Amino acid sequence: MSQAIEFLKPRLSVLENRARIVADLADLLPPECFVHELRELVPFETDAFVSYRKVPLAVALPKTTAQASAVMKYCHRYGIPIVPRGAGTSLSGGAIPQEDAVVIGLSKMAQILEMDFFNRTATVQAGVTNLSISDVAGSQGFFYAPDPSSQLACTIGGNIGMNSGGAHCLKYGVTTNNLLGVKMVLVDGTVLEIGGKHLDAGGYDLLGLVCGSEGQLGIVTEATVRLIAKPEGARPVLFGFETSEEAGSCVADIIGSGIIPVAIEFMDKPAIEICEAFAKAGYPLDVGALLIVEVEGSEDEMDAMLTDIVAIARKHGVKTVRECQSAMEAAAIWKGRKSAFGATGRISDYICMDGTVPLSQLSYVLKKTSEIVDSLGLRVANVFHAGDGNMHPLILFNANDPEEAAKAEEAGNQILRLCVDAGGCLTGEHGVGIEKRDLMRHQYSDADLNQQMAVRAAFDEDWILNPSKVFPLDGRPAT
Amino acid sequence: MSQAIEFLKPRLSVLENRARIVADLADLLPPECFVHELRELVPFETDAFVSYRKVPLAVALPKTTAQASAVMKYCHRYGIPIVPRGAGTSLSGGAIPQEDAVVIGLSKMAQILEMDFFNRTATVQAGVTNLSISDVAGSQGFFYAPDPSSQLACTIGGNIGMNSGGAHCLKYGVTTNNLLGVKMVLVDGTVLEIGGKHLDAGGYDLLGLVCGSEGQLGIVTEATVRLIAKPEGARPVLFGFETSEEAGSCVADIIGSGIIPVAIEFMDKPAIEICEAFAKAGYPLDVGALLIVEVEGSEDEMDAMLTDIVAIARKHGVKTVRECQSAMEAAAIWKGRKSAFGATGRISDYICMDGTVPLSQLSYVLKKTSEIVDSLGLRVANVFHAGDGNMHPLILFNANDPEEAAKAEEAGNQILRLCVDAGGCLTGEHGVGIEKRDLMRHQYSDADLNQQMAVRAAFDEDWILNPSKVFPLDGRPAT
Repeated sequence: MSQAIEFLKPRLSVLENRARIVADLADLLPPECFVHELRELVPFETDAFVSYRKVPLAVALPKTTAQASAVMKYCHRYGIPIVPRGAGTSLSGGAIPQEDAVVIGLSKMAQILEMDFFNRTATVQAGVTNLSISDVAGSQGFFYAPDPSSQLACTIGGNIGMNSGGAHCLKYGVTTNNLLGVKMVLVDGTVLEIGGKHLDAGGYDLLGLVCGSEGQLGIVTEATVRLIAKPEGARPVLFGFETSEEAGSCVADIIGSGIIPVAIEFMDKPAIEICEAFAKAGYPLDVGALLIVEVEGSEDEMDAMLTDIVAIARKHGVKTVRECQSAMEAAAIWKGRKSAFGATGRISDYICMDGTVPLSQLSYVLKKTSEIVDSLGLRVANVFHAGDGNMHPLILFNANDPEEAAKAEEAGNQILRLCVDAGGCLTGEHGVGIEKRDLMRHQYSDADLNQQMAVRAAFDEDWILNPSKVFPLDGRPAT
Repeated sequence: MSQAIEFLKPRLSVLENRARIVADLADLLPPECFVHELRELVPFETDAFVSYRKVPLAVALPKTTAQASAVMKYCHRYGIPIVPRGAGTSLSGGAIPQEDAVVIGLSKMAQILEMDFFNRTATVQAGVTNLSISDVAGSQGFFYAPDPSSQLACTIGGNIGMNSGGAHCLKYGVTTNNLLGVKMVLVDGTVLEIGGKHLDAGGYDLLGLVCGSEGQLGIVTEATVRLIAKPEGARPVLFGFETSEEAGSCVADIIGSGIIPVAIEFMDKPAIEICEAFAKAGYPLDVGALLIVEVEGSEDEMDAMLTDIVAIARKHGVKTVRECQSAMEAAAIWKGRKSAFGATGRISDYICMDGTVPLSQLSYVLKKTSEIVDSLGLRVANVFHAGDGNMHPLILFNANDPEEAAKAEEAGNQILRLCVDAGGCLTGEHGVGIEKRDLMRHQYSDADLNQQMAVRAAFDEDWILNPSKVFPLDGRPAT
C-alpha cells in the first residue's frame, strides 16, 4: 500500500527552522503539554489506517482552548501545517501526520464540563472519549447515541471530524444528528462558538459543515451533544440465512416497509467465523449470513416490532431466528460484533472499506463485491451496518507480499467505485482521509470539488490544516 | 415597521439598463416563464412578512434546471441581484425582492420526479409543495415529516432555504434532518448535485450548509427527501393548565424525562380564544394555557406513553386532560392549531417572533415575554412548538398607528434578545430574512459573522444572491 500514499511536499521553510519552531512552541505550552523528542513523537507517527508512518515535527497537547489557539496562531503566522488528532483511531488515515506538521492532540482536553439532564445535553472538552459520556449519563438513565466500535478510545473531537457512526445510528443518526454546538479554534487562533443547547440558530449551518470536515476548517475544543433516554429494554435478535443475498434483500424489505429497528448489523460467513472464534458470542455457524437486529422499548413494543420483522424474514427464507434471553447474552452478541475488526486483524492483514449504498442495491453490491475479490484471488469478510446501507468489506491480504497488497488496494478501489456507481458513496462513517482522496473524483464532479475547496479556503486560505487529506493532491491550489 | 426596513442600495447599472436586461432575459425563457410587465410583477412585491413592498425588475419562472442556470449565468455576468422565491410564505421577509433584482420563482418547477418507496425517498422539483409529497406518498403508507403551517402552499425549495420546521418536528426533525440530496444552481450557472439516496457522503457537508442558507449560496432546483412510514395510529391529547408557567414547566419535565412525543404544542389563553373562535376546534376555554400533545404508534404504545405523560402533567397541576375520540376530532384539533396565524390576522395586525430557548428556560421566558409586552402597553398571544423550545409570541398591534408599530417592533427585539440571553437563539424555523438581520450581532460575535460571510463569499463573491438578507447591511463587504 505504502507506495500509493503520498503527502504534499513538505515546506522547506518549516523543516529548515525546526529548532526555532520547537523553541517557540515550548514557550506557548506547559512542559507536560509539548512533545518534541523523537522517542516521544513516535506514537504519533500513524493512526489505525497504519499504511504510512511519518514522525511529525512536534506534538502539542493543549489543556485549554486558549492554548490550542496560541499554537494555531503561531503556526498560521509561519505557515506550519497542523494535523489535528483525537485518539488516532481513524481508519482512513485522517490523523496521519507529515514530517513538517505540528500535531495538535486532544488527549489532555478530557474534562466533562456539564451534564445538563434537564435539557438533555452534555458539554465536554473535545478529548473526552465517546463511551465516557454514556458512562456518566447512564446514572441518570441517558446515553450518547453514536457508538463507533472504537468508542472506548475514540474522542468526541475525532468523532466530529469524521462524522462518526456506529451500529445504533440506524435509529439515532450519526454524529451530525446528535451534535448541538461546538467551540472551535480557527486556523488563525480565532475562537468561534457555534450552536448551543437550542434548536438550529439563524445564519448558516456552520455546525453541520464543521461536522465531517476532517479537521480542515479548524480544531474543535469543546462540544455540546444531545443525550437520549435509555429505552425501557433492548433485545438483539439473530437471524440466520443460507446466503448473503437473502439476508441483504431481507434488510431492504424491513427498511422499505417503514420499520426502523435500533440496529441491523450484517455478517457473512467468514465474518461470523472470525468473530465467533474470537468472542464466543454464540453466533450460529451453520448459516451463510447473519443479521443482528436490535429492537427496543417496552416488552410489548419489542414483541410487536419483532413479529413484523420475523414475518418479513420468513419471506426471505430465514433459517434460524434466535432471541437473546439475557443481558449477558446481549452483551456477548454486541461484543462479538464490535470486536470484528480486531478479531480479523488477529488472523490476517486487511483493509476495511466504508462504502454506502441505497438498500435496494445491497444484494447486488454484495454479489459484485465477491466477484471483484474472487477475480483478484483474495478473500473478503463482510461485517457492517446493513440498515444504513453502510458496507464494510474487509479485504484480507498479506501485507508482506507487495503484489497481494497492490491487489487488495485495487479490490478496494473497484468496490468503492461499485458503491458510487450503484447510487451510493465512498464513505459512510470513516471519512475520506488519505485513503479515499483520489477516489473523490469518481464521486464528485470538478464543480463539486471546486466548491468544496472554495469553502475550505474560506476557513484556511493557506491550506495548512490537515493539508494532505480529503481532496486529491493534484486538485488543491498551489501554496 | 416599514421605516426600519432598508435594502442595499440598488445597482444603478442595473436600473439604467432595465430594457436591455428584460429583452435579454426574454430570449432565455419561454414566454410563459417570464414576467416583466408591472401588473404581473405586483404579486411578487412582498411575502408573508408584508412589512415592505418593492416591485422587482423582472421575474423568471423556469421550468427546468437548465433554464434557471441560464438566467443565473446571465445575471452573474452583469451583476444583477437575484432573489429566489418559493411560494412567498416567508415570515421573515426572505423572499421580498428589491427593485434592481430578478426574482427566480419555483412555481413552474412542480414535478414529482420519483417516489422510491423501496428506498423511502422522494425526488421532486423544488417548486413542489410540502403537502403534496405526503399526499402522494400516503397511498403507500408514507409521509414527509416537516409540516410548516403553510404546508398547503409552501414549496420544498423554500423549506430548504429556511430549514423549515413544523409541529411534528419534535420527533422527526426539521428540514435538514429529512433532506438527502439537492440539485442546485450556483450563482454562475454551474449545476451541483449534492447528496443522494445514500448516507452522508465523503467531503464536506455542503448539503447541511445549503439547508437554511436562505438562497444565498445558490438556487435549489431539485431535492431528494426522506419518506417516513405512517404510524399505526396517532392521537392528540389536550392538557389544560391554570397558568402558562405550569404548562411550560410540564413541557420541560416531559422532555427532561426522556419522553419524545410526536408533538407538544403550546397555546396561551389569548391564542386558545382566537383559534377556537376561528376553527371551532373544541379547545377548553376555562384554562389559562393548553398543551396539544400527540402520541403515535399502536394503541398499547400510545396508552403507555400517555400514562407517563399524564403522571407528569398531574405533578404540574393539570386541570383538564382530554383525549380525542375520533379522527375528525383530531383533524379539528390540528386545524385549529395550524390556522393560528391566519386566525390572529383576522382580529389584529401582528408580528410573529420565532425565538428558541432551552426548555429549562421556557417558563421564565414566557413570564418575561408577558412583562415586556405589558410594559409597552401591547398584547401578546403565544402559540408554538413547545417541545422544541421554539416560541412564537404573536405581538398584536395596530399597523395604522406608527407609534404602536414601533412599540411592537421594540417588543419583538427585546423578546428575541431575551431568547438569546437565555441560552437560545433568534430563529427556530422562520429564518433570518430581513426581519432579524440586525439582531444577528446579538447572537453572533464579529468572528462568527465574518466566518459566515467568508463562506458566503466562497459561493457568491459579488454578493448578488438575495443580497439584503441574513447579515446586517453594514456588515457586508462593499460591492
